[in-house]
Amino acid sequence: MAVLIIAKNDRPDWWADQLRRNDPSLDVRVWPDAGDPADIEYALAWKPRPGELAKYPNLKAVFSLGAGVDHLFSDPEFPAGAAVSRVIDPYLTAGIREYVLLHVLRYHKNQPALDMQQREHVWDDRGHELKQADERRVGILGLGELGTASGKALAALGFDVAGWSRSPKDIPGIACHHGPDGLDELAARTDILVCLLPLTPETEGILNAGLFAKLPAGAYLINAGRGGHLVEDDLIPALESGRLAHATLDVFRNEPLPRDHPFWDHPRITVTPHNASITDPRSVARQIADGIAAIARGEPVPNAVDRELGY
Amino acid sequence: MAVLIIAKNDRPDWWADQLRRNDPSLDVRVWPDAGDPADIEYALAWKPRPGELAKYPNLKAVFSLGAGVDHLFSDPEFPAGAAVSRVIDPYLTAGIREYVLLHVLRYHKNQPALDMQQREHVWDDRGHELKQADERRVGILGLGELGTASGKALAALGFDVAGWSRSPKDIPGIACHHGPDGLDELAARTDILVCLLPLTPETEGILNAGLFAKLPAGAYLINAGRGGHLVEDDLIPALESGRLAHATLDVFRNEPLPRDHPFWDHPRITVTPHNASITDPRSVARQIADGIAAIARGEPVPNAVDRELGY
Repeated sequence: MAVLIIAKNDRPDWWADQLRRNDPSLDVRVWPDAGDPADIEYALAWKPRPGELAKYPNLKAVFSLGAGVDHLFSDPEFPAGAAVSRVIDPYLTAGIREYVLLHVLRYHKNQPALDMQQREHVWDDRGHELKQADERRVGILGLGELGTASGKALAALGFDVAGWSRSPKDIPGIACHHGPDGLDELAARTDILVCLLPLTPETEGILNAGLFAKLPAGAYLINAGRGGHLVEDDLIPALESGRLAHATLDVFRNEPLPRDHPFWDHPRITVTPHNASITDPRSVARQIADGIAAIARGEPVPNAVDRELGY
Repeated sequence: MAVLIIAKNDRPDWWADQLRRNDPSLDVRVWPDAGDPADIEYALAWKPRPGELAKYPNLKAVFSLGAGVDHLFSDPEFPAGAAVSRVIDPYLTAGIREYVLLHVLRYHKNQPALDMQQREHVWDDRGHELKQADERRVGILGLGELGTASGKALAALGFDVAGWSRSPKDIPGIACHHGPDGLDELAARTDILVCLLPLTPETEGILNAGLFAKLPAGAYLINAGRGGHLVEDDLIPALESGRLAHATLDVFRNEPLPRDHPFWDHPRITVTPHNASITDPRSVARQIADGIAAIARGEPVPNAVDRELGY
């Protein structure tokens, strides 16, 4: 039995070290040095090459080194017999919560306009009237770990927070909407829209001109979900028409964002390089080692992903 | 008996309306239409002209329309017989807390560097390693209403928070230092320094090269106290030497900040136009009307300022 780490750009050796530290008996290998493919029963993976995981005939479970699992299911050869386990990392959740707070507060305090004033040496303390937090309606798409943690932190600061998810939820401090009608309700009452959805066939392209048209004019968008949630061609027209006031994007259809992409230079788009948060090996290596041990004992795969739902 | 509102740039008519709404019997006047100076027993003031308040012989109390009172005591003719009452506005406190959270999170998530990367179309998700909140030591100068509220909110997000004040304090979640030795202790353990002090002869110029030298190299500075706290000539050398990594300033010795001031264009200074927060008349008019009624009944001035301490 061996564990293979496939995380080309995400410090695979550090992951290997942390995993061995938690269970010195584990045979941990780092891709591409997999050895005999038949040995590999477990994989820790982030964006493996399509077809790569199909090479390991005895693969039982894949642990996703990030909050989303779309990077696995987008592989048409993903092995049907392998379970997928999501790693739930409290530090990753905290990092997303911080990103959402930062960018909601940045809009709340008109910081993008103040940045522009600074460049022009303009002192205008009256043009952008400050609102109280309870006058800002934040709408969160996705009420899993990340959306719930972010929504609660915003509610604690006094923001008027609602959320939307596929199935009904009941979360103190967050007005919960669900289903297609619920999405329209949420949009109609949202000044700052935050996307933290999983990427599935149902949510692909959910951030589109149709949804933007249902928001109050001058709404703000924060996408820390996946690039595939946004119909990129719909964004700049929505900003130009004033439908949206500003957008902050951490994720893109093509990453790294191509150097000639129009988002880079748009004065009302903030680009961050998919680093809103990261999974911290120190935090989750124990969880993964325990998960491997549990599966080896024949117990259910922890935090197993539903292949049909895609999350 | 009459109440005079002196708040040239701060919507004096709105203040007057709000005050009358809370106590229709009040004779509320808006400067410069004071009528007979002998009528004026109370004033609501923000930055009155030096000598102005000395014109009202029967002035009993001045309510400061902002968190600080230095704008009153800087008047050499401030009437010795008038008490000063600080208005404690929960919305003003919330606004400062939001400003501090925004700018601490902005540093925590390396947003100034990411802004620069965006301008250069650079996608670098690895150059600025993300830290966990508990790896960021925030130090707050001033543990009054504003510093305490800000510190608690930061601690709730997991930041490692300490504070400093003139006299000893004991605040859950904040490591409290005090006095001259305490200032050195605070500086030695602070990655992000936040100034929320009152401006007094003791705190004037407290943000200077000597203090910066006691911070770890590459510390961040946020000044939302008063412009007089910062020795402006010491800032750019500290940034150029790497002693400080970046500074965010909401307050300045001269406001508006002069158009040719070097702070505007410095790549590692963020300038905001003294709008971190504002006092909201809706929130405090009742408090002021009640305060006037209490003083008229011969009760002590609420939230009275100690003239010796200056806060």
